[in-house]
Amino acid sequence: MSEVDIQGLIPPVPTPFDEREELALDRFKSNLQRWNTCGFSGYVVLGSNGEFVHLTEHERLSALEAARDAIPTDLLFIAGCSLQSTTETIGYLKQAARLGADVALVNAPFYYKNAMTPARLLAHFRCVADESPIPILLYNVPQFTGVAIPAQTVAQLAEHPHIRGIKDSSGDIDALSNVLRLTPESFRVLIGSASAFFPGLVLGAHGAVLAVAAVAWEACLEILNAVQWQRPQRAKDLALRLLPVAAAVTTQFDIAGLKAALELRGFYGGPPRSPLTPATNETQAEIRRIFLASELFPELEP
Amino acid sequence: MSEVDIQGLIPPVPTPFDEREELALDRFKSNLQRWNTCGFSGYVVLGSNGEFVHLTEHERLSALEAARDAIPTDLLFIAGCSLQSTTETIGYLKQAARLGADVALVNAPFYYKNAMTPARLLAHFRCVADESPIPILLYNVPQFTGVAIPAQTVAQLAEHPHIRGIKDSSGDIDALSNVLRLTPESFRVLIGSASAFFPGLVLGAHGAVLAVAAVAWEACLEILNAVQWQRPQRAKDLALRLLPVAAAVTTQFDIAGLKAALELRGFYGGPPRSPLTPATNETQAEIRRIFLASELFPELEP
Amino acid sequence: MSEVDIQGLIPPVPTPFDEREELALDRFKSNLQRWNTCGFSGYVVLGSNGEFVHLTEHERLSALEAARDAIPTDLLFIAGCSLQSTTETIGYLKQAARLGADVALVNAPFYYKNAMTPARLLAHFRCVADESPIPILLYNVPQFTGVAIPAQTVAQLAEHPHIRGIKDSSGDIDALSNVLRLTPESFRVLIGSASAFFPGLVLGAHGAVLAVAAVAWEACLEILNAVQWQRPQRAKDLALRLLPVAAAVTTQFDIAGLKAALELRGFYGGPPRSPLTPATNETQAEIRRIFLASELFPELEP
Amino acid sequence: MSEVDIQGLIPPVPTPFDEREELALDRFKSNLQRWNTCGFSGYVVLGSNGEFVHLTEHERLSALEAARDAIPTDLLFIAGCSLQSTTETIGYLKQAARLGADVALVNAPFYYKNAMTPARLLAHFRCVADESPIPILLYNVPQFTGVAIPAQTVAQLAEHPHIRGIKDSSGDIDALSNVLRLTPESFRVLIGSASAFFPGLVLGAHGAVLAVAAVAWEACLEILNAVQWQRPQRAKDLALRLLPVAAAVTTQFDIAGLKAALELRGFYGGPPRSPLTPATNETQAEIRRIFLASELFPELEP
Repeated sequence: MSEVDIQGLIPPVPTPFDEREELALDRFKSNLQRWNTCGFSGYVVLGSNGEFVHLTEHERLSALEAARDAIPTDLLFIAGCSLQSTTETIGYLKQAARLGADVALVNAPFYYKNAMTPARLLAHFRCVADESPIPILLYNVPQFTGVAIPAQTVAQLAEHPHIRGIKDSSGDIDALSNVLRLTPESFRVLIGSASAFFPGLVLGAHGAVLAVAAVAWEACLEILNAVQWQRPQRAKDLALRLLPVAAAVTTQFDIAGLKAALELRGFYGGPPRSPLTPATNETQAEIRRIFLASELFPELEP
Repeated sequence: MSEVDIQGLIPPVPTPFDEREELALDRFKSNLQRWNTCGFSGYVVLGSNGEFVHLTEHERLSALEAARDAIPTDLLFIAGCSLQSTTETIGYLKQAARLGADVALVNAPFYYKNAMTPARLLAHFRCVADESPIPILLYNVPQFTGVAIPAQTVAQLAEHPHIRGIKDSSGDIDALSNVLRLTPESFRVLIGSASAFFPGLVLGAHGAVLAVAAVAWEACLEILNAVQWQRPQRAKDLALRLLPVAAAVTTQFDIAGLKAALELRGFYGGPPRSPLTPATNETQAEIRRIFLASELFPELEP
Repeated sequence: MSEVDIQGLIPPVPTPFDEREELALDRFKSNLQRWNTCGFSGYVVLGSNGEFVHLTEHERLSALEAARDAIPTDLLFIAGCSLQSTTETIGYLKQAARLGADVALVNAPFYYKNAMTPARLLAHFRCVADESPIPILLYNVPQFTGVAIPAQTVAQLAEHPHIRGIKDSSGDIDALSNVLRLTPESFRVLIGSASAFFPGLVLGAHGAVLAVAAVAWEACLEILNAVQWQRPQRAKDLALRLLPVAAAVTTQFDIAGLKAALELRGFYGGPPRSPLTPATNETQAEIRRIFLASELFPELEP
Repeated sequence: MSEVDIQGLIPPVPTPFDEREELALDRFKSNLQRWNTCGFSGYVVLGSNGEFVHLTEHERLSALEAARDAIPTDLLFIAGCSLQSTTETIGYLKQAARLGADVALVNAPFYYKNAMTPARLLAHFRCVADESPIPILLYNVPQFTGVAIPAQTVAQLAEHPHIRGIKDSSGDIDALSNVLRLTPESFRVLIGSASAFFPGLVLGAHGAVLAVAAVAWEACLEILNAVQWQRPQRAKDLALRLLPVAAAVTTQFDIAGLKAALELRGFYGGPPRSPLTPATNETQAEIRRIFLASELFPELEP
């Protein structure tokens, strides 16, 4: 099992589609090549923002191959996995590892929500971790799954040698604080919600996996550095200005908003897959207005 | 597009696995052969109770083939489909149709819950229905998906010639009543929640798709007939006695409970797939106790 | 403890205020006098629709006195009570009894929601029932309180000689069915949600306490009678047509909607108390439109 | 309207009852006298932890009088108010002001949850603020009320000259951040949830109203000072150690837990009022264990 240190700023990159909603791997690679120069520690490929659930099995493997081509070996390549059965999760992780992923980001199974007791979550993640050829990053994202992994369960999973950290996208500062309290320093806690980014860092989190980082990496990195250099006032100011920008590319306009915002920053955006729908002209204009109002993007012209 | 009439009593059959959690198609066929004599109008294969989300793409097709072999042509063969992208849904429906399914039971996409506005649900289901070679039965199951299809949206979808009905598992009597109010008599409303079974029939529903029917078909058919024959007192008595039995094979002990109960009735049960876990001995005993207490199973010995 | 039989159709009457939001007891009495001829079994005074929580202690007692004056002794006078402490609840019930209320409708305490375990609910209701000089009707209304009284708890409370029934406004058909299953026939179950009215009657409920009854008593009584006379088709048709009317005077336009609808039927409506706001002209027109469309009010002119 | 500056550390003090659940004002005064030496900026009297909803109107006024006697004039005396009607809220605030309260802490009305639109909340709070003789501190506590005051609404209310700040007990770091972003520096934001205490301070909050402060003021003040002195590491360590202590006196064991913990620190605790129940011996032992394990209370002997 490789030694990886999961920290720093990591965008969960969108998967590009062309105007017919077909996988556009050339666009994916060119986007990654540009992101390679931005100062990230790595990438999450095929996470929630990567529309994992909208890809066929075959497309997932193609996307992982393309990502492996485009991601330098000194950056972390984290492969998202949102499958329901324990066995299928393990099978997918083996394929992802074979295709060169460094780390697997693994959701709680969630279709049978009420059955997902702490005991079953423990057994599932332990079984996956036992069999996984690559380190595991837990993924807590109750806003999509309807299942929250309790802090106590995270603490028990942190004892497994293959489980190296968690991406906590819940935005629940109480749960996040308890995870930080109950896990050792070597267990990496990455914030997955922009509102919890700066507070989470101050509480001891090791980094962040943020959709907004894909379009506002300068501000996100400055927050990260400001915390490390003990400049809380600067970090706070940036964190508050980042809030509406982050909402625009997540909760407010979903992945369509993120893809539209990519265009603003010179990347390929394109449409999400149906049933998601491309940002309308009005939404695009509103996103531009929000970005301008934040004063975080000096190169954007009004 | 074939003319089918979706009504009567329909069990959403579990998919059998052997003790290593491998697909046990011979067990599936022998179970179906026995159910063929019970008085059902048809089957839902690979619905929520069929662990659709726990099967690989290849396994799903094998299970549909086996079902086609075992289901007589005078019974409805309804294939469950719980996929997220519009395109992948259409692709799967075409395969299901090719393998002989009569009707497709289609979930609302749900991973990106907050994006699933009525407009996007409408567009998704219409697009699926346009392309589907077989009739569509909508599937409303917010307890698993976190997305409820609004009654007004159902009413708009009912105008599509390929959308023939809904399985409403929400248990929400207000939503169900409004669906019945807003759709024409030709649009079939099937109850998917045991608590709403008898009340739903009285409100005008055309049948039911109930997990409990797989183990308690006699009582379910008697309720159905009692309503048709205007014997509400008998139906009411049975409906109340059925409640704890239905809970035991759904919310209380999940699919493991249903599979354990199958054994009680002489079918093959077997384990669910991980992360679900087989019923413990204690749970099996408790299910037996609940079945006996209902007095709905005279052949069961205390 | 008096013998009362709580059944039939019972409106939870609004409390009238004048245009300055002052208690208008003369209007209250004249409204009651007109309702006295409608065929009701009794009234709930100062329930949720009676804005109990918007009245001072002194105003509550005045309203009870006025109600006692206007309600004939052959109709049930049920006094709502939504207080938080056990002791204050008992004190209020004693005053209500002294002023002539026949029955007390008692909410679960709810401010400290998470502390309201079944054990604490049991202890609270038992203590209140022990001390109450009049029979108790439990009141389950989680949409306002955030606390649902579990069916098992209701069944335990039904053993108390002073607790004679429940008004279940949850609209949860599973919970309602379990209450009917677990309580003796002598324990009266009244439906408090229009969507669950007809289904609840068919399941064995003994009557209903419905806001919509205050403005649509003819249809409600016809449903009640149709069920008793085994005319389910007629009851079903009326029940579905009643749905949008009931929504307009509850969930859609709140108490302001109910008060506006009262004016349509020739009663005094007037404003609710702030922070509730009177129905706008647009809302009034919409309510009129909904009432007309239902075809339940032949005297209303388009 | 007086000039007050609401900041620093403020405990929402419990209201003491004797073993018969009668108001114990002498105990209240002696507790306050001891707290007067602890370094607080003031008190919230009759907030959620003060069991406002369990007191009669007369008891509330007595408690305010007792508090006025015991609170020095250089500490803030904030009176809680959790009433439903606009008019009754104004009446109560006038009484509280007459009895010497410096500031009123005012809840969103909440019984008619679904009617509490932003427009109605705005109108209610503006009307209350117009008439209040003392400054208003908004109180956002959706865990008790089921109504969250949106950040945008708070920002609009912050323009009212009599509305000076908010106690945000939601623990929702996104909502809190947006309140801080959208309101001027002169609008005081006090954190009301221990998990959000340190993160909130770092984001710019001006202080906190915390139940746990009543029993762990030393740690809370050290966190407050550490943030001001830019010692985030120390603050973070204390914040994480404080979490289980704070849970024990709030969510885990409710007000009974807080009262039991007061005894541990040498104050009078006593029982809460029914339907709340006193801490059992087991709970008391568990609280003691949690306090010891935190290592925040060196004087406690194992």
